[in-house]
Amino acid sequence: MHQRSSANDLVLGVDIGGTKTELALVGGSGSVVARERLSTEPRRGAERVVAELADAARRLVSDDAGRIGAVGVSVAGQVQPDGVVVGAPNLGWSGVPLGAMVADALGAPSTIVNDVRAATWAEWRHGAGRGFSDLVVLYLGTGVGGGIVSSGRMLHGAHGTAGELGHTTLVAGGRRCHCRNHGCLEAYVSGWAIAERACEAGLGAPRAVTAEDVAALRQAGDARAIALVQQTGELLGEALVGFINGLGPKRVIIGGGVIEGFPELVAIARDVALARALPAALVDVTIVPALLVNDAPVLGAVELARDTFLER
Amino acid sequence: MHQRSSANDLVLGVDIGGTKTELALVGGSGSVVARERLSTEPRRGAERVVAELADAARRLVSDDAGRIGAVGVSVAGQVQPDGVVVGAPNLGWSGVPLGAMVADALGAPSTIVNDVRAATWAEWRHGAGRGFSDLVVLYLGTGVGGGIVSSGRMLHGAHGTAGELGHTTLVAGGRRCHCRNHGCLEAYVSGWAIAERACEAGLGAPRAVTAEDVAALRQAGDARAIALVQQTGELLGEALVGFINGLGPKRVIIGGGVIEGFPELVAIARDVALARALPAALVDVTIVPALLVNDAPVLGAVELARDTFLER
Repeated sequence: MHQRSSANDLVLGVDIGGTKTELALVGGSGSVVARERLSTEPRRGAERVVAELADAARRLVSDDAGRIGAVGVSVAGQVQPDGVVVGAPNLGWSGVPLGAMVADALGAPSTIVNDVRAATWAEWRHGAGRGFSDLVVLYLGTGVGGGIVSSGRMLHGAHGTAGELGHTTLVAGGRRCHCRNHGCLEAYVSGWAIAERACEAGLGAPRAVTAEDVAALRQAGDARAIALVQQTGELLGEALVGFINGLGPKRVIIGGGVIEGFPELVAIARDVALARALPAALVDVTIVPALLVNDAPVLGAVELARDTFLER
Repeated sequence: MHQRSSANDLVLGVDIGGTKTELALVGGSGSVVARERLSTEPRRGAERVVAELADAARRLVSDDAGRIGAVGVSVAGQVQPDGVVVGAPNLGWSGVPLGAMVADALGAPSTIVNDVRAATWAEWRHGAGRGFSDLVVLYLGTGVGGGIVSSGRMLHGAHGTAGELGHTTLVAGGRRCHCRNHGCLEAYVSGWAIAERACEAGLGAPRAVTAEDVAALRQAGDARAIALVQQTGELLGEALVGFINGLGPKRVIIGGGVIEGFPELVAIARDVALARALPAALVDVTIVPALLVNDAPVLGAVELARDTFLER
């Protein structure tokens, strides 16, 4: 076992992506003392990525003079509570014991987290969720993921998957999802789903039209694109009704690349949710865009590690 | 303020219904030492109900010799965290400060809880959820409600409404619900929804056909009734997919009058959920009927009061 970490130790946050790995070293006060971005190729093996990030971490620490007391690592994939990455298609990894590998390489306890849940931690501690105890956070990107904070605690569920709100059935018997369900929220409002629906609406050729094309067409006043965006926002709002009723958040945060491309989705969804959710569940509820953009996962990985390992 | 309760104190559980009030007095070991059922008429005012239940409680305690250290009260309605019953249509109550009234009448701290959430507590501590830390519980009755336990804690949400899973959008743009949303789970699988859908399927006259009629017709081999029940179970299963993916329970418990009338719904829903939820979220997940029937709310109110006020 590792020695007990103290509140004065440095905490390392890492976000492993398909082409780059971000590192952030945070001091006892919670402020970032050093950062680095590495070009990495996860498809060449997790051993190599871990060795490269450990080398970089040692460089960062020797510059700062201190001791890494805990490590948090964010990956785009499904992670078990024991730190095993069950599946991470974008990295080409499955069954990788990343938690143990990182802990061994750095001599510090590690915790591994899905990148969307990591971003939720960052948004909670540093972004639009700061000061709230009950949050629902949704990220609309290539896929749709999220995170749930309830009475000041992030939900993990029995298998570390809690927060996978993109795979909530929104249209029973509806569109096929990339998971094996039909009618998931993701099958309507994700980047891939918007592109598919745009193709069906006659806005472009299969596998050629993108969500960006839809945004440009909408900007140019194309009625089909305007209708598609409106419908997407309304569907998102209908999903929010269920999340607000079932989970009781005080704030709902919506972020991700799709929202950056279609920021109006937040207002459309908000109108539907405020008109349709149970009044008792809606008292003082606010629905807002995410504040953090690129570095949310790496900062969130730090927060999770601090919360997991450091004495407060 | 009330004096601090100790683990040796008696705990009183109360379930206030439309025509009767159930009381259960539980000792330090957790076992029921006395019970009583009162005929009550909540529509004649909350003051009267509270006075009657306080009289009954004093009788129960004088028989037992002890001190009531905490009170838990279950009501069929929406309850704020401060113990105010915002709305309880079946009791004719709105804006009733029940928590303060009960505490004053009995000289002990009180906590008020929605009856379905109370039943979830009972099912967790004494029923099909015993020993589990991550549960989703759904009750299909006249309406549909539920409760969520995550990492050993019952979720309340910011307004005490968490667990209102019946008002999750399952069919966007679908059937009108008794709340102001469309397409809620409740609008398909509750007692009233099954009756409405049965009428539309030609199984009886509007406002005359009941879920019981559907059960009888199904028993008699009516093809329309068989199809209706099958479809109801499949819709329930599609909702479970979202709850399993988003919340990560290890066990899902389904109870309520509709399940007592159509026990086969559990197996139909289970088949859909196990085939459609994310494999990572399904590891060792079991989907089972509720074990407790009539006295779940009163026993759950006891458990909530013990958890809230007693030192363990």
